[in-house]
Amino acid sequence: MSGEGDTTLKSICYKPGSLQLLDQRKLPLETTYLEICDTADGWSAIQEMVVRGAPAIAIAAALSLAVEVSNFSGFDGSSAEAVAFLEKKLDYLVSSRPTAVNLADASLKLKQVIANALASSAAEPNSIFKAYIEAAENMLEDDVASNKAIGTFGSSLLRQQAKNPDKLSVLTHCNTGSLATAGYGTALGVIRALHTQGVLERAYCTETRPFNQGSRLTAFELVHEKIPATLIADSAAAALMKDGRVDGVVVGADRVASNGDTANKIGTYSLALCAKHHGIPFYVAAPLTSVDLSLSSGKEIVIEERTAKELLNTHGGLGERIAAPGISVWNPAFDVTPAELIAGIITEKGVITKNANDAFDISSFAKKVTGN
Amino acid sequence: MSGEGDTTLKSICYKPGSLQLLDQRKLPLETTYLEICDTADGWSAIQEMVVRGAPAIAIAAALSLAVEVSNFSGFDGSSAEAVAFLEKKLDYLVSSRPTAVNLADASLKLKQVIANALASSAAEPNSIFKAYIEAAENMLEDDVASNKAIGTFGSSLLRQQAKNPDKLSVLTHCNTGSLATAGYGTALGVIRALHTQGVLERAYCTETRPFNQGSRLTAFELVHEKIPATLIADSAAAALMKDGRVDGVVVGADRVASNGDTANKIGTYSLALCAKHHGIPFYVAAPLTSVDLSLSSGKEIVIEERTAKELLNTHGGLGERIAAPGISVWNPAFDVTPAELIAGIITEKGVITKNANDAFDISSFAKKVTGN
Repeated sequence: MSGEGDTTLKSICYKPGSLQLLDQRKLPLETTYLEICDTADGWSAIQEMVVRGAPAIAIAAALSLAVEVSNFSGFDGSSAEAVAFLEKKLDYLVSSRPTAVNLADASLKLKQVIANALASSAAEPNSIFKAYIEAAENMLEDDVASNKAIGTFGSSLLRQQAKNPDKLSVLTHCNTGSLATAGYGTALGVIRALHTQGVLERAYCTETRPFNQGSRLTAFELVHEKIPATLIADSAAAALMKDGRVDGVVVGADRVASNGDTANKIGTYSLALCAKHHGIPFYVAAPLTSVDLSLSSGKEIVIEERTAKELLNTHGGLGERIAAPGISVWNPAFDVTPAELIAGIITEKGVITKNANDAFDISSFAKKVTGN
Repeated sequence: MSGEGDTTLKSICYKPGSLQLLDQRKLPLETTYLEICDTADGWSAIQEMVVRGAPAIAIAAALSLAVEVSNFSGFDGSSAEAVAFLEKKLDYLVSSRPTAVNLADASLKLKQVIANALASSAAEPNSIFKAYIEAAENMLEDDVASNKAIGTFGSSLLRQQAKNPDKLSVLTHCNTGSLATAGYGTALGVIRALHTQGVLERAYCTETRPFNQGSRLTAFELVHEKIPATLIADSAAAALMKDGRVDGVVVGADRVASNGDTANKIGTYSLALCAKHHGIPFYVAAPLTSVDLSLSSGKEIVIEERTAKELLNTHGGLGERIAAPGISVWNPAFDVTPAELIAGIITEKGVITKNANDAFDISSFAKKVTGN
């Protein structure tokens, strides 16, 4: 599907004028792509969970509008009307998943691009559409490039800190791969890079209860890429580490506070505690956009609780009842891993390590790499 | 079903001449008892997982033979033939689950009882059958009494070591309750005792992946007993502890080595590590029969690996495919928690605590309490 000899699994297949999305609802048993012709298709695909993962959602939305406007036979209106049209469509796309921060952020950035295009001297509807399409395409390319940089920095870090830099096994949690991003992945991107370099002995992925992102999606990606990989129950990770079979743990992040405390899928904190006990380095891999410098620590991160059904029924809540009727459930979506348990934060601009006070200074790192 | 105002859930309902077993395959959605008329019924019930849990299996087997012989209209043979009959039936029952140590142990003890009865001066077939029936009934009563003693010792220990002895919340793993034993339970017996004493704020039970004994069976027992209880994903335990919501962790044991290292359901070790980090006491509750003094440490315990299907399919392997095709699986049934992480071992004869060298001396404890 992705063509041209590149066998990397793609959740987003785009070429100018054409967008197809991998239907993740049918994974891992069926690999089906849906044709996305316009924003209405894009809106539905996001709403109905065809595509998931914060970066992937934002990019799929942006590209659905790019496809719609690139297939216009002609636009019968002024430059200002072209801008109004794009803005209205972007607002509509954001309404598909109102709580997705990346999607809203992407919409703001794209609106800025359109506003700049309108302000330029040669503004006409077609030049505005062209500016929009280029910006949407750049988002796709930038996300993949950012993930590849994370893979490069991360693989080099893990090799440096491993007993044997030429043969290491890595444990990951949840899904942070091609399916959650525009391609390549963050934590899974690091594993991919190690594999490409021929130094990955084995990847271990957890089931990631209760929604099974590990057994369904990460396992699917690892098998697809022919990366030697083993699935374990979340609760078997400690025994695996005790056996000496894990050289490093690398996970993604939903949000990183300015001190390095990291909110990520429930179970991450437990893995970090087990890794610490066994002297195994524990890393977070995430783009700098995941860092929220307005949060001084993880205590300020509000943890979403999800439906009890995810534990009570099979298929992450969508299948048959399995648990005892009448039981109460506590189902937090995330937990917070304190910075003290994290050996390094791998970003697209390099690795954030601890300073002499054994603390992360993410703010200084961000200033240095962005020049602000 | 259990009658006489006792609403405790019973997996084994016995009165002289009658045995019914709770069909655990149908839990938690259906509560059905199967009539067991003879050893053929008993054999099938064990083989087909109607009854599970090491103590429960052994007692169900013994009682199925007790029911068979108590319903004899007459036995046409000598005393020696009565003994041979019973021995043959016991061997047959052991063949229903050849690897179950408790079942084989129970068979050996019952054979000794029969041999003693044959050796007595008044030996006739009926007196031999009577001796057998009494011994089988004693196994049932002894197991419940042993569990209740564990509950008493354990609840007192947990209250002593809790911040507030009159209001504590306890986390447990897997199923160690009425369903796995003749009644009451080991680790769950401790929770039951705390509840009876009116000091249990809440019990937390893990799902216990991949076979879901927690969400199916422990949750069922807790709801049945009206014990305030909450189900969590195994991987959410660390976050729960961090929130300060757990005063103690109590788990069962498949096997305890002489130094206190404990093999128990996969995930136990991870809970012990998380408890240690949060300063929460971690206890093992098990009858002295679970201690194997021939093992000097947990390193000598061989860990059984179970079928990959438990992770690949729903319903612990019996349901639909959920994980990605082609993925390898590591599915250990147990892990070993080192003695250093265990605050006390709660037995029916009292609590084994650490000596001045911060070590368990189980051998001395066993000698003291058994007088051997």
